[in-house]
Amino acid sequence: MAKPFDQLAFVLVRPKSAGNIGSAARAIKNMGFEDLRLVAPEASTKENAAHAMAVHANDVLAHARIFATLGEALADCHLTVGTTCRGGPYREAVRPLRESAIELAEACRTNRIAMIFGTEDTGLTNQELKFCQRLITIPTSAEYASINLAQSVILCAYELRMALATEKHASAQPQQLASAAAVDAAMERLKESLLAIGFLPEENPDHLMFTLRGIFARSGLAPRELEIINGIAKHTKWAAEGGHATLAAKRAAGKKLR
Amino acid sequence: MAKPFDQLAFVLVRPKSAGNIGSAARAIKNMGFEDLRLVAPEASTKENAAHAMAVHANDVLAHARIFATLGEALADCHLTVGTTCRGGPYREAVRPLRESAIELAEACRTNRIAMIFGTEDTGLTNQELKFCQRLITIPTSAEYASINLAQSVILCAYELRMALATEKHASAQPQQLASAAAVDAAMERLKESLLAIGFLPEENPDHLMFTLRGIFARSGLAPRELEIINGIAKHTKWAAEGGHATLAAKRAAGKKLR
Repeated sequence: MAKPFDQLAFVLVRPKSAGNIGSAARAIKNMGFEDLRLVAPEASTKENAAHAMAVHANDVLAHARIFATLGEALADCHLTVGTTCRGGPYREAVRPLRESAIELAEACRTNRIAMIFGTEDTGLTNQELKFCQRLITIPTSAEYASINLAQSVILCAYELRMALATEKHASAQPQQLASAAAVDAAMERLKESLLAIGFLPEENPDHLMFTLRGIFARSGLAPRELEIINGIAKHTKWAAEGGHATLAAKRAAGKKLR
Repeated sequence: MAKPFDQLAFVLVRPKSAGNIGSAARAIKNMGFEDLRLVAPEASTKENAAHAMAVHANDVLAHARIFATLGEALADCHLTVGTTCRGGPYREAVRPLRESAIELAEACRTNRIAMIFGTEDTGLTNQELKFCQRLITIPTSAEYASINLAQSVILCAYELRMALATEKHASAQPQQLASAAAVDAAMERLKESLLAIGFLPEENPDHLMFTLRGIFARSGLAPRELEIINGIAKHTKWAAEGGHATLAAKRAAGKKLR
């Protein structure tokens, strides 16, 4: 079993400030973590401002991995957790940091978890939220809820550290979940199949898909469960592409349904 | 009764970086507080870097009060809490942030509390620790325990906010404590009196005084209790300055002891 502290990845999406990247590296190391990932960063880890803020966390900075897309950054993760300070559409299931950290500390015993932070000025977009199985928020004053990127990172890292330190290791065998890449692929297959059968509107299939993704995300999918969803998608598409006629023919012939 | 969120002051001692001052202002406002105090800052709240990091907390920055000494910054506070990442001499009674935050949330219903943060590179000096009735530390990795100044501020502010939000308001009438200035004056009187009687060594009276201060700090002194300590100091000094002879004479004459 991997060490829990190695199972947490901190993913910064399109960070603009080298100073924030450096500060995030230091925050991650302060709390005992080391996996920093950057998606299409608009600043470089090699800038002086990044090194100045990282101080003794230049190793975390040097090992930070850079990805072109959020999907690629999350491919090896089993649980993807977005951070948001906003409510609104697609953001109804947001839960407070501390409450979630306790569950994540348990889950990271057998699953790689990504904590995802949006760009400085706008946070995670609705498009990026689709990659987040869960959403958390940091409690703040209503008057000024937008926390600096690196400050958000240390608050999350701190709560995860506290939760890992107090975790009882007393529960039953924790469940191994499917990877985010596998879930994402399944959702794409499902979407195609639901488009094929005309359930999803061609002009905006993602609106309904988001709700579906949310349902699966809340439940957390084991690999075997994901296979079932993939099977459903495959069969649905097959039915839409003419399989229905074959099926009707088979039925009429009294053959065993496939 | 004052609002709890107005009772917390965040005191930065000799901050060097305008960016950190600005970040601290934002962190304080994010968590619902507003009282920022700077002791002999080496950077100005008016610098661009401070405003850039404060973003929408320029009001907190503009109202930040500047003091020449730590003692002056703490004069109106009843409980003074220092932050440290180091153990060592004078630092034995350090307690973890979350545990302390719960008590502080209760205490701030009737007491003004100062959260004190040392300068970026060295933290609070032993001299500055003398002004701290309590010491807290933020749990970190042993590998890299030094947290950025503004990051420390938001972690403390967050834990205080969480503690205030969950506080039950169920305990008995909380105790009104003496102000830090009053305690400090009493400790000075006590020191003079203990020097006068030759208990404290002239060459280094503060070493033992620190332990004494710690004892009183842990207990938390009510104004009436402080009067008693002041009385003890006064009488001790009086005794050292010849009062003992008067006393012996009175005793010999069978008069009532003063």
